[in-house]
Amino acid sequence: MSEIGLDGRERDMKGGDKGGTDDAGGSALDADRFEAEAMVLRESLLNAQFDLADHSNRAVLILLNGADGAGKGQVLNRLYEWLDPRTLATLAYDINDRRDLRHPPAWRFWRDLPQRGRIGIMIGSWYHTILLHRAAGGADKETFHARIAETNRIEDMLDAERITLLKLWLMLDDSETGGTAINPAAPPGSRNNPLVREWVEIDTKKERKRLMRAARELIRETADCRVPWHIVRADDPLARDLTVGRRLLDTLQAAARWQPVPHGLPPSRPRRVSNTKPVLPTLDLTQTLDKDRYEWELADAQARIFAATQSKAFRDRALVVAFEGNDAAGKGGAIRRLRSALNPVHMRVHPIGAPTDEERARPFLWRFWRHVPLRGHTAIYDRSWYGRVLVERVEGFAAPAEWQRAYGEINDFEAQLTRADYIVHKFWLAIDEDEQLRRFEERKETPHKRFKITDEDWRNRKNWPLYAAAVEDMIALTSTKAEPWTMVESNSKRFSRVKILRTLADRLEVEL
Amino acid sequence: MSEIGLDGRERDMKGGDKGGTDDAGGSALDADRFEAEAMVLRESLLNAQFDLADHSNRAVLILLNGADGAGKGQVLNRLYEWLDPRTLATLAYDINDRRDLRHPPAWRFWRDLPQRGRIGIMIGSWYHTILLHRAAGGADKETFHARIAETNRIEDMLDAERITLLKLWLMLDDSETGGTAINPAAPPGSRNNPLVREWVEIDTKKERKRLMRAARELIRETADCRVPWHIVRADDPLARDLTVGRRLLDTLQAAARWQPVPHGLPPSRPRRVSNTKPVLPTLDLTQTLDKDRYEWELADAQARIFAATQSKAFRDRALVVAFEGNDAAGKGGAIRRLRSALNPVHMRVHPIGAPTDEERARPFLWRFWRHVPLRGHTAIYDRSWYGRVLVERVEGFAAPAEWQRAYGEINDFEAQLTRADYIVHKFWLAIDEDEQLRRFEERKETPHKRFKITDEDWRNRKNWPLYAAAVEDMIALTSTKAEPWTMVESNSKRFSRVKILRTLADRLEVEL
Repeated sequence: MSEIGLDGRERDMKGGDKGGTDDAGGSALDADRFEAEAMVLRESLLNAQFDLADHSNRAVLILLNGADGAGKGQVLNRLYEWLDPRTLATLAYDINDRRDLRHPPAWRFWRDLPQRGRIGIMIGSWYHTILLHRAAGGADKETFHARIAETNRIEDMLDAERITLLKLWLMLDDSETGGTAINPAAPPGSRNNPLVREWVEIDTKKERKRLMRAARELIRETADCRVPWHIVRADDPLARDLTVGRRLLDTLQAAARWQPVPHGLPPSRPRRVSNTKPVLPTLDLTQTLDKDRYEWELADAQARIFAATQSKAFRDRALVVAFEGNDAAGKGGAIRRLRSALNPVHMRVHPIGAPTDEERARPFLWRFWRHVPLRGHTAIYDRSWYGRVLVERVEGFAAPAEWQRAYGEINDFEAQLTRADYIVHKFWLAIDEDEQLRRFEERKETPHKRFKITDEDWRNRKNWPLYAAAVEDMIALTSTKAEPWTMVESNSKRFSRVKILRTLADRLEVEL
Repeated sequence: MSEIGLDGRERDMKGGDKGGTDDAGGSALDADRFEAEAMVLRESLLNAQFDLADHSNRAVLILLNGADGAGKGQVLNRLYEWLDPRTLATLAYDINDRRDLRHPPAWRFWRDLPQRGRIGIMIGSWYHTILLHRAAGGADKETFHARIAETNRIEDMLDAERITLLKLWLMLDDSETGGTAINPAAPPGSRNNPLVREWVEIDTKKERKRLMRAARELIRETADCRVPWHIVRADDPLARDLTVGRRLLDTLQAAARWQPVPHGLPPSRPRRVSNTKPVLPTLDLTQTLDKDRYEWELADAQARIFAATQSKAFRDRALVVAFEGNDAAGKGGAIRRLRSALNPVHMRVHPIGAPTDEERARPFLWRFWRHVPLRGHTAIYDRSWYGRVLVERVEGFAAPAEWQRAYGEINDFEAQLTRADYIVHKFWLAIDEDEQLRRFEERKETPHKRFKITDEDWRNRKNWPLYAAAVEDMIALTSTKAEPWTMVESNSKRFSRVKILRTLADRLEVEL
């Protein structure tokens, strides 16, 4: 077996005369032929990389997987040799770093997602945990398949959100027997002492075999999905690198050529996509609360929320609250009563306005993932990811295909929070058209409320039936047992605030 | 003493008839007069807040300090009542959260710095630690004063970088005796059981007294500085809130009115600002290395760096390396050899290009602070904060006052990293004009290097003497014992790479 230096390049050259086969099953590649082919490939790769950067329509994310010793670190170094490092980033994670457990597992992947026009190389991707659980016996067949199905949905979403995935599995000849044992005394960068040690928990030959079996199962399971795996024979390092380079070239060229499809006009009729019975007409908006009871109930709910979120049990949990509602329904006032019941150290309110350019260059959920709280903390979203199926749908900012797939994407997002022991709750604050008009007029008159009313509010008001249909679909398609919507009758601000805070206090006490 | 509800508002109203004095030393404020004054104040505050947001020339950062029980939480809630929450953020920190110790202490303040046009309210600011060390006896007078002096310099920098600070100290009548003892059984939000408990370590009456003595010392020390403290009498909650509101109004109005001063033309001559002997002419650029020795020395240095950064001793340290140099001096190639000697899990390379809009809206150091690595990790900056005193100086992107103050600002930044046990090293890769020309011509010819040469490179080349003067000043003014510059003779790429990697290997072995 060839000895590979830390740097990869210089000694790889000498490794060409050793055994192994290239991807096409031909004979071993000699260094001269490699050098010649690499020079041509490299120029094409750079051309494609610069095209991608110039158009910035898509990002490319390479998932670099395989047994330790198959050359993940060497391939990484090779790509840094071939590509322009200025639009390239490595995303590598220490799976055992407890610091990373303070957020849901997917958080760090989202945090590091390359923006459009750029390339990311990810080592130890979301497949790491899935395979490890399967290999270590922690996940039965059903769980394993459910996780793969979810992963496929998320990868479809990333693809639709303009992230092209290139999934590579570096396969060694001895993969059948579970790869090679690690020997820290071997030269750094060699097969027995690889640069990247992703599978530190996999120790015995039996465990290595189970891991490889899980990998083959995974690859088989996902053969038909939109983003397939590419198996790269890894025994001959030079042939391996050329194969990876060629696959990447195809990927980069396709991503650079990609153009968004214009989606036509916004829908002109309030056509629903779900067929449940409408819930908005069933709300009794006349409900109210007298001042004394309001003050008492509010203070009581606030004290309960304060106690719950300061409790020991909450330290490993987290609270994510999304506020949506008609314009002037009282989101701001309700959020203020909630935030004053929380320790400011452990809480953030995120008002969702126009996205920044960093946010615009990434999938729509990115800006919400970035504010997902640490364990023990609360994040309050003043408007949220539901904008996708509300304003973006109604105003035509999102194509029909985009907002229609968003229901499932949102459910997957929230399910990932729940699975990480986060408590997710969503409030829709409902008022009727008369009450909204009254509040708009009042805002015009009241000096300190004047700022709360804009031309856009009057425009939105004209689309009331379109918004109502969007709300019905949203409630029907995203209300789940673990991530419920609470409909809040908000014609009375007192009733609304108390209902919200009591609902949260009850929820917290049930969860903790 | 008045009992204050969690929410602040409703019960504050009833607290007005209790004892206490307003800031001007007058009599207690009754609820009606408060209500009337607050309504006027609130409209002015909103006007100023919207002006600030519209112009986005400055950010406003309120540092809310004082003994626990003085009403930090209540003032916070009041400001949320008065202001528009959409451009308001709370920055509050749990000083004992060990998760925050994985970065230098200032990192989280930088992370959360409001962008221009916005308002941040910070609780437990950088003064928390300074005062706590002093009160607990951990900092002698000299250390205390040195920290205050550094803080003053950093606040001057923030001010110059368009962050207006409003430093408030809420002072209770009984502050002389160190405030009130905490009683968790008291109503939440009352003086004995405040919403914000910043000084949890301060327990006994003696400790409370020492804290107050340190606070008075701090406020006295900083009386003459550009950003003074405002002492707010806190015994009467209503008067306290009005005083805070008025101070904030002045601050917001001044910040909203602020206009940048045009700085005139870029300097036309390579005038130096330091008077040291030039170092560039003393470099022996003829130094080279034969291929065999290069390969051996490179591999040796890489192995040493790999071992050092994977060692147990490095887990609580971190490495920050900045690469600067003439165009075509070989930064990319050197960085590639360094990165392949590091575990990709614990390392990131940050190529510094044009700032994003999120970066542009904040002080120039923000984009570098955001990439400061976790402990145990390495951050490699491919170009760095030194752009401020190199390209920005020479091309006139920064005003003379801006780049001239940057030397000290950079020294303070790096000193903060060093004090947090980070290892900071800076490399200048020097080639001469002939070698640069040769490399530019070669890049034009070589297919895969064509991308590395742009019109800008030829333009920069014409300013060679201006850049040389800027480099001399940079080396003279920012080379320190703890954060050294290494000058790298780079006409020979082999010599250059080996010098860089050996220097880092030596440095790491000395530090660990």
